[in-house]
Amino acid sequence: RTFSRGMQTVTIIPGDGIGPEISSAVIKIFEAAKVPIQWEERNVTAIKGPGGKWMIPPEAKESMDKSKIGLKGPLKTPIAAGHPSMNLLLRKTFDLYANVRPCVSIEGYKTPYTDVDLVTIRENTEGEYSGIEHVIVDGVVQSIKLITEDASRRIAEYAFEYARNNQRASVTAVHKANIMRMSDGLFLRKCREVAENFKDVKFTEMYLDTVCLNMVQDPTKFDVLVMPNLYGDILSDLCAGLIGGLGVTPSGNIGANGVAIFESVHGTAPDIAGKDMANPTALLLSAVMMLRHMGLHGHAKKIETACFDTIRDKKVWSRAVQYTALKKNPVSESVTLILLFI
Amino acid sequence: RTFSRGMQTVTIIPGDGIGPEISSAVIKIFEAAKVPIQWEERNVTAIKGPGGKWMIPPEAKESMDKSKIGLKGPLKTPIAAGHPSMNLLLRKTFDLYANVRPCVSIEGYKTPYTDVDLVTIRENTEGEYSGIEHVIVDGVVQSIKLITEDASRRIAEYAFEYARNNQRASVTAVHKANIMRMSDGLFLRKCREVAENFKDVKFTEMYLDTVCLNMVQDPTKFDVLVMPNLYGDILSDLCAGLIGGLGVTPSGNIGANGVAIFESVHGTAPDIAGKDMANPTALLLSAVMMLRHMGLHGHAKKIETACFDTIRDKKVWSRAVQYTALKKNPVSESVTLILLFI
Ligand SMILES: CC(C)[C@H](C(=O)O)[C@@H](O)C(=O)O
Ligand SMILES: CC(C)[C@H](C(=O)O)[C@@H](O)C(=O)O
Repeated sequence: RTFSRGMQTVTIIPGDGIGPEISSAVIKIFEAAKVPIQWEERNVTAIKGPGGKWMIPPEAKESMDKSKIGLKGPLKTPIAAGHPSMNLLLRKTFDLYANVRPCVSIEGYKTPYTDVDLVTIRENTEGEYSGIEHVIVDGVVQSIKLITEDASRRIAEYAFEYARNNQRASVTAVHKANIMRMSDGLFLRKCREVAENFKDVKFTEMYLDTVCLNMVQDPTKFDVLVMPNLYGDILSDLCAGLIGGLGVTPSGNIGANGVAIFESVHGTAPDIAGKDMANPTALLLSAVMMLRHMGLHGHAKKIETACFDTIRDKKVWSRAVQYTALKKNPVSESVTLILLFI
Repeated sequence: RTFSRGMQTVTIIPGDGIGPEISSAVIKIFEAAKVPIQWEERNVTAIKGPGGKWMIPPEAKESMDKSKIGLKGPLKTPIAAGHPSMNLLLRKTFDLYANVRPCVSIEGYKTPYTDVDLVTIRENTEGEYSGIEHVIVDGVVQSIKLITEDASRRIAEYAFEYARNNQRASVTAVHKANIMRMSDGLFLRKCREVAENFKDVKFTEMYLDTVCLNMVQDPTKFDVLVMPNLYGDILSDLCAGLIGGLGVTPSGNIGANGVAIFESVHGTAPDIAGKDMANPTALLLSAVMMLRHMGLHGHAKKIETACFDTIRDKKVWSRAVQYTALKKNPVSESVTLILLFI
């Protein structure tokens, strides 16, 4: 596979806070590694559309509609602003129904756990994130968790196909069908049905609380986990914690027909923004996921290896001032992965 | 405080599987420690009441109504049986609105974490456990999460009072008000309001996903945590995992006017039931919580100390066959705490 065979366009959404600097780190690394990608940069801020509905800027939407692939830094989402989280709006706009987060222990990055190697697959469109809430009477509020057969089947199929394509032995459905018998019950039923079509992949079911308990006792027992939206939000963060946090954990949001946005899911870290101290690892590893999604496996492998080697060997830029900062903040250790390619 | 000053009655619900043997271990330890308690044993199985409603047996209800205090082993709750979980029905019947689980690292019981010392306080009556679910149209199901002002205020007040009475410095409200803005928003608002009346206790707020992530990275940062029902279910199990699992974690369900049921929250473990291999630690430590609730602080301290000394010094009964089993299953290490008192 050569890179002269035509460039693919990727929409890059640098985001807020440290977003621009980690994005530019990734772009430089991709240039150094001669990745045949051409970036189209777009901003994403909340825009009020014709009917008063919140939407993403048309230029960002058009770019994504064309490129189908996005790479995205953190976006600030102040509750006070009154608009929904831009992260959620993006997932919704492009119907990115599967949130995929591989959690793999990183050599040289010490945590209480070793040999973690699992993937959380989160239903990304419904459940507790339906946004439907009501005041019933004064002081009594209800939120609606919506589970559909279609979305449940779709995410279950995604999980099993992911397992099969990535040589993973098992899929565990995570649920609370003992409590939410109808909604989680439906989700679970769809998982069971889909499992029937993937006899080569082992299927198990577990309560969410039990998964959390066992996860902190021995994460190596888990492989691919599939679950409704909120459970995925929780469990994916928990699992990220096991390997070093959101600063080193990649994430991809996958839709139909190849549409996908890969993103680092850490915050905008305004306190260190602009100081060249931010760690681009999560965004870089997300970009590596993106390369695999695009079929650029050689480039993916090369950059991933460089990234892990850099962290393992602590090969970081040693400009004095920065080095001091790094000592204090191990999250920044890989700040200059780019050096590897120069 | 002497034990001759009159016996208090406690309703004991031994439960299923290993329930009877761990209950009898606790009873023997209490006898050896001369605790001024008289047990009233009751079974709890699902009974269909007049209107076809599931209820607990009247003899159990009457006993609890009189004694106000219960100690309970695990109850099996087969989904297939068609009745609700007996654990939930008990919480509901006696309006046990606060589920309290202290998680403290146990010396001699190795896990990846040390110095854990936190308490989860879970709203125990509503939220995602409302039991209200509907099929909207074929293939579309909704579950209703119900949050009320009264229940939110009540649990917030309980948490702050708990912190104050137990010399704990801070209370953290755990929520997803960025997603469930109205329901978790209401819960959070009540926590903030109550915090105003407890200026001696520090108040913070955190997203559930962030708590999970930070918890596995450094649990020592947390103190008292208060949260809606489902989040408590998840987080209390996660935290139990940090210190050794449900086999060593106590739990109390607290209602108004002193009514309370203390319980081990592990399963019925039918595979080892009747083999004298079950570990009574969780039920014993729950019973210690109960003693404190009853004001029997001297007895509580004595038994608690004996329990922790036993685990620390691995002073377990060494009947050969059992010892082998213990080697394999460290959860059983404290199986014969009772020896300490003989
Ligand atoms: C940003 C926020 C709305 C989001 C969520 O709750 O899903 C985040 O926590 C995530 O996991 O992507
Ligand atoms: C037994 C079950 C219904 C219960 C729950 O989900 O609340 C259990 O997990 C618990 O934490 O007490």
